[in-house]
Amino acid sequence: MRLTTLCYIQRDGQWLMMNRMKKRVDENAGKWIGVGGHLEAGECPEECIAREVREETGLQLKNARLRGIITFILPDWGDEMTFLYTGEAEGEAREDCPEGILRWVPVDEVDSLPLWEGDRVFLPLLRTREDCFSLKLTYAPGGALTGCMLDGRDITKETLGESK
Amino acid sequence: MRLTTLCYIQRDGQWLMMNRMKKRVDENAGKWIGVGGHLEAGECPEECIAREVREETGLQLKNARLRGIITFILPDWGDEMTFLYTGEAEGEAREDCPEGILRWVPVDEVDSLPLWEGDRVFLPLLRTREDCFSLKLTYAPGGALTGCMLDGRDITKETLGESK
Repeated sequence: MRLTTLCYIQRDGQWLMMNRMKKRVDENAGKWIGVGGHLEAGECPEECIAREVREETGLQLKNARLRGIITFILPDWGDEMTFLYTGEAEGEAREDCPEGILRWVPVDEVDSLPLWEGDRVFLPLLRTREDCFSLKLTYAPGGALTGCMLDGRDITKETLGESK
Repeated sequence: MRLTTLCYIQRDGQWLMMNRMKKRVDENAGKWIGVGGHLEAGECPEECIAREVREETGLQLKNARLRGIITFILPDWGDEMTFLYTGEAEGEAREDCPEGILRWVPVDEVDSLPLWEGDRVFLPLLRTREDCFSLKLTYAPGGALTGCMLDGRDITKETLGESK
């Protein structure tokens, strides 16, 4: 299983979002997500997210806080375990990075961006949960979200509706 | 990186501990640890720990709570990411399981058992931390603990002494 980190850097009611559009093969192509990437050998998640934020934005991550772990079941791409953080950062973020375009987006406008369906499940948890959650998101081939489990409890119907 | 779960089941001031002594090749041979095992394909950590507790003890895990994630750097065995839980369980645990002997041990006697050096770092955190911590434990070849990082902060000297 791939291990990745993902961080939503917060400042003045905004999140630093990346529009993934630079890599030719990228399962996140066109989507807006936070900043992050793959764990390298010998790294723990905190080391990984600090490095990824530095490499992708030029910023130094501060007060990183583990907010959740997400098990992605992704038949098209291979399963992935993501360690989800929020944090702060001083200085000016670059606007352009090797993997996409960076923009500060007001938190209440993030929902209107092109997002993964599952991101619409976990992003609200950053606003409502203080403790670290564990979320499982199951996608079908083709990219539709078909299952959600939160802290071991199946929340698919209440989250996605009776059709799932 | 291997992904595993580990649970300390609590009851009446005791933890359910396993003395690992059944498998011929087992990096935990002789050591007392909690109950747990490897994530199977398609499982999230909560599904894994519920299955492992059921298989190893015959108990149904209740109120499982994610207490920490631990990145083990293990040159002798390959690196491992462990999702650490506490929980409760009803019924009688079997005394014997395929991987070792099970015993309820008073929490204040656990320290006197043969434990991994790093377990003496994270077990106290179960008593002092309410939130989910992220701990990195770095072992040298041969099994000596040489580095500790807690929530991204190097705590090696204060934890292991100036010699490390």
